[in-house]
Amino acid sequence: MDSRRAQLLELGLRLFGRRSYDEVSIDDIAQAANVSKGLLYHYFGGKRAFYVAVVRDGARRLKEAIEPDPELPPPARALAGLEAYLRFVEDRADAYTALVNGGLGADPEIFDILEQTRRQQVQSMLTDMGLREPRPAYRLSLRAWIGGVETACVDWLRDPVLPRAQLLQLLLTGLQGALAAAYAIDPVAELTVPIPRLLEVDPPG
Amino acid sequence: MDSRRAQLLELGLRLFGRRSYDEVSIDDIAQAANVSKGLLYHYFGGKRAFYVAVVRDGARRLKEAIEPDPELPPPARALAGLEAYLRFVEDRADAYTALVNGGLGADPEIFDILEQTRRQQVQSMLTDMGLREPRPAYRLSLRAWIGGVETACVDWLRDPVLPRAQLLQLLLTGLQGALAAAYAIDPVAELTVPIPRLLEVDPPG
Repeated sequence: MDSRRAQLLELGLRLFGRRSYDEVSIDDIAQAANVSKGLLYHYFGGKRAFYVAVVRDGARRLKEAIEPDPELPPPARALAGLEAYLRFVEDRADAYTALVNGGLGADPEIFDILEQTRRQQVQSMLTDMGLREPRPAYRLSLRAWIGGVETACVDWLRDPVLPRAQLLQLLLTGLQGALAAAYAIDPVAELTVPIPRLLEVDPPG
Repeated sequence: MDSRRAQLLELGLRLFGRRSYDEVSIDDIAQAANVSKGLLYHYFGGKRAFYVAVVRDGARRLKEAIEPDPELPPPARALAGLEAYLRFVEDRADAYTALVNGGLGADPEIFDILEQTRRQQVQSMLTDMGLREPRPAYRLSLRAWIGGVETACVDWLRDPVLPRAQLLQLLLTGLQGALAAAYAIDPVAELTVPIPRLLEVDPPG
C-alpha cells in the first residue's frame, strides 16, 4: 500500500478514536496530517469514504495482530489470541475504541466490516475447536462472548479497575463459561478442546 | 405523560428500530404519525431531541419490563429478570434494536442514557448478590455479560437459530460463568447467591 495513504489511515484511526465521526471534519484531518484537503479527496473521495477506509484498515490490523501461531495447539491458541487482543487494546486504545464504538455504528457498510471481523473471529475459534458443521449454540455463545470482550475492553480502557492479567483471566474464564453453556445445549463429541463443566457450589461462610 | 407525546415516542421507537437515525427524516416521522412537523417541533424541538427522548423512553420501558418482583429470592430474581428481558426483546424487537444499536451510538448523550441503563442493571444484580462495597471484578464481569446478552439478542433477532428457551439457558449459564470468573479473582465471603465453579473436563470420545 502507498505509504502516504497508510499514514493517513493511521492518523484517521487516532482521530476517530478520540472524537466521534461528526466531531471530526475534513479540515481537521487535513490539518492534523499537514496535507491539503485536495489530497484527501484524491485518495479517499470524501469524509465518509475516508472513515470506511479507516475502519477497514483498523479491522485488518486487529485481525493481523491476533492471528495465532498455527503451530500452537488449540487451547494455547485461544490464550495467545486473547493475549494479543488485549495488547492491541492497550497499545492502540484509540484505534480499538474507533473500531468497536464506531461513530457510524448504524451505517450498514461500517456495521458489515465490523460484523465480518467478529464472524471471522468466531469462525476461527470454531475451526480450532474441530467444529465444521454449523453449530448454532456454539456460534451464538462465542459471538456473545466476543460482544462481552469488546464491552469489557472499552470499559476497562475508560476505567482500568483491574490489572491486565486479571482482565485476561476474567475473559478466559468467561470463555470457558460460554463454551460450557453451548455444550450444555449441544454436547458435541468431536471437540478438540476440553470443555469445562459448571458446578454449582454454595457460597462460602 | 401527555398521551399524544407518548404516542409519538412509541412511534419513534418503531421507526428508529427499523431504520438508522440518518435514514429517518422529520418528514417521515410527521407522515407516519399523521401530524404536522410543527407539532413535532412543539413537543420535541427537533429530530435529535426527538431521538434522545425516544431512547430515554425506550430505556425506561426496558427497565420497567425487567423490574424483578422484590419478593423473589436473588437467584430466582436473576432468572425472572432475564426471562422478562427476552420477552421484551421478542415482543418489542424494533424498540430493542433501536436501544442497543442506537443510530447515534457515538453521541455522548445517547451513550450516557444507554450506559446508565446498563449500570443500573449491573448495580441491581450486585445488590441482589449482597455486594455493597465496590467489587471491580464483579462489576466488570457483569458489565461484559450484559454486553454479551445484547450482542446475542440482536444476533438472535436477525437469525433466530435457537428457540428462546435455549437462548435463555445459554445466557443464564453464561451468567454463571461470568460470576465464576469474578469469584476466581475476588472470592467474596458475603455473597447471597451460590457461585458456580468451573471444572475443566476432557472432551468426550
